[in-house]
Amino acid sequence: MNPPAPNIEEIGVYIPAGRISNRERQAQFGFDDAFLENKIGMLATAVKAQEEETSDLCLKAFAALEAKRPVDRSALGCVVVVTQNPDSNLPHVSAKLQGLLGLPERCACFDVSLGCSGYVHGLAIVQSFMQAQGIAQGLLFTADPYSKIIDPADKNTSLLFGDAATVTLLGERGRYAAGPFTFGTLGREHEELRCLPGGKLEMNGQAIFNFAARTVPADLRRLLASAGLVLEEVDRFLLHQGSKFIVDTLIQRARLDPAKVPFAVADYGNTISSSIPILLEKEIASGTARTMVLSGFGVGLAYASAVLRQTSFAL
Amino acid sequence: MNPPAPNIEEIGVYIPAGRISNRERQAQFGFDDAFLENKIGMLATAVKAQEEETSDLCLKAFAALEAKRPVDRSALGCVVVVTQNPDSNLPHVSAKLQGLLGLPERCACFDVSLGCSGYVHGLAIVQSFMQAQGIAQGLLFTADPYSKIIDPADKNTSLLFGDAATVTLLGERGRYAAGPFTFGTLGREHEELRCLPGGKLEMNGQAIFNFAARTVPADLRRLLASAGLVLEEVDRFLLHQGSKFIVDTLIQRARLDPAKVPFAVADYGNTISSSIPILLEKEIASGTARTMVLSGFGVGLAYASAVLRQTSFAL
Repeated sequence: MNPPAPNIEEIGVYIPAGRISNRERQAQFGFDDAFLENKIGMLATAVKAQEEETSDLCLKAFAALEAKRPVDRSALGCVVVVTQNPDSNLPHVSAKLQGLLGLPERCACFDVSLGCSGYVHGLAIVQSFMQAQGIAQGLLFTADPYSKIIDPADKNTSLLFGDAATVTLLGERGRYAAGPFTFGTLGREHEELRCLPGGKLEMNGQAIFNFAARTVPADLRRLLASAGLVLEEVDRFLLHQGSKFIVDTLIQRARLDPAKVPFAVADYGNTISSSIPILLEKEIASGTARTMVLSGFGVGLAYASAVLRQTSFAL
Repeated sequence: MNPPAPNIEEIGVYIPAGRISNRERQAQFGFDDAFLENKIGMLATAVKAQEEETSDLCLKAFAALEAKRPVDRSALGCVVVVTQNPDSNLPHVSAKLQGLLGLPERCACFDVSLGCSGYVHGLAIVQSFMQAQGIAQGLLFTADPYSKIIDPADKNTSLLFGDAATVTLLGERGRYAAGPFTFGTLGREHEELRCLPGGKLEMNGQAIFNFAARTVPADLRRLLASAGLVLEEVDRFLLHQGSKFIVDTLIQRARLDPAKVPFAVADYGNTISSSIPILLEKEIASGTARTMVLSGFGVGLAYASAVLRQTSFAL
């Protein structure tokens, strides 16, 4: 018999202090206040120091986790890092972290390559892996510093994406249980968001917007149906923070209560797979939401959604 | 209740026709026949065409799978690609394949970044993901074309690594069931096998050899103990084909019967995460092995081992 699936115990977040102001780029890119405030919704993007590596961001997220609660490193049985911008293509970042954090040799380490849907996918992957392998505690990192691949002169991307990292501690005494999940991929549209040869990011913002506006509302309906939930029973919808306009559009098209849907990235930008766990950290701290829905969408093009329910350990 | 874990149904293999002869490089690198035949054991390495991308190799492995047995693409619920040399860092190769193969939108797609231990890790990851998500059929690809990152003038790497791809079809009627698994990582040694800034592969062959010779025999003992097996009950040990010398050393140190341990890469080289499934394809075809052990080791430094047992569908 498999043990029960592990749950979300706590989240550590690291957002670098560095900022690039979007207001200061209004003249350069020629957009007005309404575009900045109502469409993009990001007044600044967070940017790591040049020399900070992806693994460094992860270590700082882990330090933030340890500042909140003690973590018994010797009890950790797996480390998964969601990134498409690792320190280098090989080795995987998770192996470096295993060494740098002094984790047990028997810790299973692997990286998962996914973008803005990566946290939700990653939760499903690490949870099922831990359950099947009988691993009681594990770490799920997200760290995808797009500053490595963004051309500062590209208006389509440089105003949106910020650097950050998070780490989620999963264990038997977790405060939120994840599932069911839904997953989707539209690989025929993969060229709409990609790295070009040479490594620079290229995005067709309109295509990504249309993709999310078209697929996510139906995906949320499907998720809720499979969970046996109605909209009113969900206390929070933590949607990937792609832009203010996409979040507003999803509120409208999925008929969500705007008071249940945070948009909280004005100060640091779209942090790819870290956007949802950054919101989730605050919800865990407040503990008021009993039922939440997560939904991520982006690179692939891919999307994934999940229900989170408070466990008895949250009380 | 979760359904039973899916099993290995069939494997498709693609090894590019291109070869680089190691005999022709004896003068350049200054080694003798004994080194080539007894230490390395690779007389040639397979090399893809310059323009072939990682996803192209995967498509050819899938074509080889379809040539063996029909695959109902509409029934595929996930695609996982193990690679550290994707087409580009984003999007993930699995999303491209979802589009190119015309797979269902509800197919969950992600890439896993691991090296020579990647097939064994990947089996555990995809199997547990499918089981937890109730996915009946899925694909696990391996494709890590090191010709992208090898310096042909580097004797440490250019004589060893070959290009290849495989795809494993997993499903409820699979012929081999995988598990239990063991995993290990020694991240403090991650610099012994890595890509340098600029993208070229660098390997400390002696360190990798020592790592494998030290960790794998103990890992096999631990795996067999956890599976309730003794050495004599295992019909085949499919060890990662790092070099003839490491396979011979593991035979000796783990006291394996040499007749049970194939070394079959003289013609195409060490194909990283594809080395084990290439061997396994032949075992599935012959069907004589009832119980097998897989063990992969390399980048990370990481290792993973698994027991495979024939199911009733193999008969």
